[in-house]
Amino acid sequence: MKEVMSFIRANKVNDTKRALAEGGFPAFTCRKCLGRGKKSIDPELLHTVLAAGELPVDAVGQSFTEATRLIPKRFFTVIVEDDAVQKVVDLIIGVNQTGNPGDGKIFVLPICEGYTVRSGESTVEAY
Amino acid sequence: MKEVMSFIRANKVNDTKRALAEGGFPAFTCRKCLGRGKKSIDPELLHTVLAAGELPVDAVGQSFTEATRLIPKRFFTVIVEDDAVQKVVDLIIGVNQTGNPGDGKIFVLPICEGYTVRSGESTVEAY
Amino acid sequence: MKEVMSFIRANKVNDTKRALAEGGFPAFTCRKCLGRGKKSIDPELLHTVLAAGELPVDAVGQSFTEATRLIPKRFFTVIVEDDAVQKVVDLIIGVNQTGNPGDGKIFVLPICEGYTVRSGESTVEAY
Repeated sequence: MKEVMSFIRANKVNDTKRALAEGGFPAFTCRKCLGRGKKSIDPELLHTVLAAGELPVDAVGQSFTEATRLIPKRFFTVIVEDDAVQKVVDLIIGVNQTGNPGDGKIFVLPICEGYTVRSGESTVEAY
Repeated sequence: MKEVMSFIRANKVNDTKRALAEGGFPAFTCRKCLGRGKKSIDPELLHTVLAAGELPVDAVGQSFTEATRLIPKRFFTVIVEDDAVQKVVDLIIGVNQTGNPGDGKIFVLPICEGYTVRSGESTVEAY
Repeated sequence: MKEVMSFIRANKVNDTKRALAEGGFPAFTCRKCLGRGKKSIDPELLHTVLAAGELPVDAVGQSFTEATRLIPKRFFTVIVEDDAVQKVVDLIIGVNQTGNPGDGKIFVLPICEGYTVRSGESTVEAY
């Protein structure tokens, strides 16, 4: 079993929900989060300017502001059997890929065990 | 060390908090999330209707709406030593099991290391 | 690849963001959560009082209230290569350590794979 977690654009939530449901993965959660990717920070430049005690010049100021400004994103969690991971990843990439920075990231995490609360049933993985 | 994450009904938060505290697991976090389980989606039916370009008939419309409507849930994270996982799982099932769909899910994830920020102390696992 | 997740004080968000950006880790997410640590719950005492059906005396009442009162915290997720984990942990401890209870916790989780949605590129780990 694996957790497929994805950080996507807020305006892609409905398309993603639809794609997952139609693709046979109706069970998932969605949460709000704030985040940012690797765009436009230059740590060397920042260090130099900050070390020199200078007022940041425009480019650096902008770079720094950019670096710490967090953008509202949505965070999807889909938990599936190992052999379905690639299909879920492809579905999420399929509806979220615009080709621009900010499209998001997907990470796959291992799950040791799962339980259905209603029945108390366990799915023990050979992890 | 393991992370026990559970998605439960919003109205079970207080019972769950109490059960964990009384059971000797006072440290946890709780977050809001939106989610849904596997109930009632029929991807084949959806595909057929969508492919035919027909207006969804009532049953399908309902199925699709159901499939993408997310329900407010609560998401608990409890991080414990390996030998306490089963006790935490049992506690959570004990207070959350009503026998109806929507009772929730529990997943257990591996943790490699933990740190206490106050002391800087590390708990390195033999992972 | 690893996920470094940290639960920190809400008033440390800006310092943490700045430290991560300056340290060369501009990509992360931040979420609100409610949580509590191990402080001040005495399950034995609670069990005794609850079993006896007595009204909780002040100390116990306080202990119990403390045990289940959740505090607003912030939850940071930073996903980095294995060899950067220690640097990220040190950065987070550096800006969040006041020496008082409530400074927070850091946990490191394994990640199996990562994908950039924009390009569809995968980073498969030898996990």
